[in-house]
Amino acid sequence: MLKRFLSTIEKYGMIQKGDGIVVGVSGGPDSVCLLHLLWKIRNAYQLKIYAVHLNHQLREKEAEEDALYVRQLCAQLDIPAFIYSEDIACYSQKKGISFEEAGRERRYALFDQVMQEQGAHKIAVAQNMDDQAETVLMRFMRGAGIEGLAAIPYVREHRVIRPLLDIPRHEIEAYCRISELTPRLDYTNLQTIYTRNRIRLELIPYIQEHFNPKIKDTLWRTANLLREDSEFIDSEVQCNYEEIVQLRQGAAAIFLEAITKLHPSIGKRIIRRAIREASGSLMDFEQIHIESILNLANVGRVGARIDLPKEMMAEISYDVLIIKKRITISEMSFFYTLPIGEDIYLKELVGTIRSKIIEWDPSKEIQTHSCKKYFDLDKVQGGINVRNRRQGDIFWPYGMKGRKKLKDYFIDEKISRENRDRIPLICDEDEIMWVVGYRTSEKYKIDEHTKRVLILEYERNDIKDR
Amino acid sequence: MLKRFLSTIEKYGMIQKGDGIVVGVSGGPDSVCLLHLLWKIRNAYQLKIYAVHLNHQLREKEAEEDALYVRQLCAQLDIPAFIYSEDIACYSQKKGISFEEAGRERRYALFDQVMQEQGAHKIAVAQNMDDQAETVLMRFMRGAGIEGLAAIPYVREHRVIRPLLDIPRHEIEAYCRISELTPRLDYTNLQTIYTRNRIRLELIPYIQEHFNPKIKDTLWRTANLLREDSEFIDSEVQCNYEEIVQLRQGAAAIFLEAITKLHPSIGKRIIRRAIREASGSLMDFEQIHIESILNLANVGRVGARIDLPKEMMAEISYDVLIIKKRITISEMSFFYTLPIGEDIYLKELVGTIRSKIIEWDPSKEIQTHSCKKYFDLDKVQGGINVRNRRQGDIFWPYGMKGRKKLKDYFIDEKISRENRDRIPLICDEDEIMWVVGYRTSEKYKIDEHTKRVLILEYERNDIKDR
Repeated sequence: MLKRFLSTIEKYGMIQKGDGIVVGVSGGPDSVCLLHLLWKIRNAYQLKIYAVHLNHQLREKEAEEDALYVRQLCAQLDIPAFIYSEDIACYSQKKGISFEEAGRERRYALFDQVMQEQGAHKIAVAQNMDDQAETVLMRFMRGAGIEGLAAIPYVREHRVIRPLLDIPRHEIEAYCRISELTPRLDYTNLQTIYTRNRIRLELIPYIQEHFNPKIKDTLWRTANLLREDSEFIDSEVQCNYEEIVQLRQGAAAIFLEAITKLHPSIGKRIIRRAIREASGSLMDFEQIHIESILNLANVGRVGARIDLPKEMMAEISYDVLIIKKRITISEMSFFYTLPIGEDIYLKELVGTIRSKIIEWDPSKEIQTHSCKKYFDLDKVQGGINVRNRRQGDIFWPYGMKGRKKLKDYFIDEKISRENRDRIPLICDEDEIMWVVGYRTSEKYKIDEHTKRVLILEYERNDIKDR
Repeated sequence: MLKRFLSTIEKYGMIQKGDGIVVGVSGGPDSVCLLHLLWKIRNAYQLKIYAVHLNHQLREKEAEEDALYVRQLCAQLDIPAFIYSEDIACYSQKKGISFEEAGRERRYALFDQVMQEQGAHKIAVAQNMDDQAETVLMRFMRGAGIEGLAAIPYVREHRVIRPLLDIPRHEIEAYCRISELTPRLDYTNLQTIYTRNRIRLELIPYIQEHFNPKIKDTLWRTANLLREDSEFIDSEVQCNYEEIVQLRQGAAAIFLEAITKLHPSIGKRIIRRAIREASGSLMDFEQIHIESILNLANVGRVGARIDLPKEMMAEISYDVLIIKKRITISEMSFFYTLPIGEDIYLKELVGTIRSKIIEWDPSKEIQTHSCKKYFDLDKVQGGINVRNRRQGDIFWPYGMKGRKKLKDYFIDEKISRENRDRIPLICDEDEIMWVVGYRTSEKYKIDEHTKRVLILEYERNDIKDR
């Protein structure tokens, strides 16, 4: 068994000579065996070993006995012991997380703390081969992709190591007996203990009997195979992500040409990661949302957009797909007064309205486009303001005989309900002069009497730097 | 349900307008439902449908009734039916394969045959969502990598399609009832029926009750996720394989520099495929062999080699790793006579011995190297022959005082047992003149009396073209 322990350590480069190692010791068989094995090789590897134990204060007397046992064992082996006691129930309540999560969070925080205080290099924890097999099986039944099925890694972040992961539980228990260690019962997995016990005591024996007597080895091997593939996929995602995704003010911009050329296996992962970085988490996002975004990228029509969970949206903007926070209708109400001849910035739309007055010279060429229009300034009667639509708005489209409801105009133009709130209207008091990006009003058109012209221009700033 | 059927067909591009489709119809609910659904969309897609049924002759009366049922159903739907009957038990015995494999082999052969005869384009078969979930679960318990867990593909080789793979079994059965089809019991899965039934009737209900009520959806989704990843990995293997592996006369040569730069996830798959192509199959090869080969490549010392199952070996030869059939000792016995002044080809070693006679001119530079040596021709007493070592060989190494056992010489030179049989010895009758690649004999050395020199040179031909 020592041989297997050493070969795992060497294979995954877990320990270098002279390392300081913080060992998480609950007092159960796994962690006691781990501590003892590391103690055995301490001279060969010139190790400095530190034991850390946390009393979760979830069981009164037993928990104190656990701590005492760890203290005595460490004294016997001449290993410094760091024994902590925290009210995990209270912590879990405060943070709104399960006991299990709370315990893990605090344990790792303490491991890190001791590691830094003692100048140690590694944190050793004690999952074994059976834990690996049970974890794979549990995740398989709950549903998982390759990352989840790869289960427990041997080394995480070059720092957390699991040297018992190739050793079955029964060998660990035998080791404890032979070495005359008298470990305590292991209560670490509080939350999952019901599920784990059922897997361990019912499901695995059933599979052993009827399908595969070596199911534990099989699952352990599956995890190792899938972990290698998962690491490869990860590395592909990583190097592509850096090249094709840019984060700008809480929005992720993904190069369209690049993302559509990637295999969907990689493309979807890049999209997931972009969402996570743009919105902080992937909660509420499902496979179907990721697929819709990839679809949007593949179709790639400029301006096309889809709504996503968590108030997010994806939108095609020239050569990029942008994933960002959606501006909701209530937030989307805006009103600005426009001092004629000046510029104003519309923060809700990340855009600027520019205004300029010129003397009218009919012989000169008029340079307009969908976002730049000319108006007869002398026809303006009140103050000019910029706002989004309101209930009951009426509009007299250029070239038409009369006024119509703005709503009907939007419908005729096939402007989606979502987008209607995002279109700035430039108004002379209540009279709409221009539905920006679309039609101007008949009322303010240049004619033979025009003397001064108001030039209005709208510029989007969110896409300007591309 | 028709909608889901159509969306699966569209999503995976299964059917183009005007396709001819061969449908495998056992007479069970799945295949009857598939036939009926295709028949329903025949006009919209301008399909030509052909039904193929194979009586496996494994159940007498029922099998004939199955065939009759398929014939009647097809007549009703006006679909041409191709009904075959073959002795699958006999075929399976003849080919040494299971009934199940034999049945599948013959069915697909008939599907292909009808497809070609009728100028059809696709073969549709009827696995459903439950089959998918059961297959994933079965493979997971048996042990599988990502390729295996990806389970049943929607489309194989642009030719075999499975349009029911997104539809659960109970919906198919309901469809048959509503459509007043009266399918037969499905006996297709003969071999696996025991395992499948246990999974279907015991294991899945158990998991539904205790772990995940939606386990079937979960597994079906897992298969779809893993399939996408598997396809990506496959495409990476494919494009790298073509660049870095060359097949030459039953041996695979893998560029060392390229294979060692790849992620092991891809590198190992390339090695597996190279073995399969060099040896015909991967049988008897395990993960550990693949890892040893990759290790050999990473160390990369020229001449290093390892033995593999199935009489194969891997060897470093300059800038490539070669996987080839091992030449075993019994095959490795060789003996050639060398007509002085001529060349001979040693087929066992894929090498050539060249010989040349020159007048000796001591003023000229001697150009020798480990595979090219000079001998005093007049010291040769008998006929020259080339052979590998024999029991009891004795040798007088150049520069030494006396003879020694060839075996001891090999040991001193640290030549592995395996390689000793592969070293050509050039002999004057029984006297060893040269251990090729190593030392020449003291007995034939050039001296002040030398008049004619025999130049011998060994050239390996297996690595010449690189």
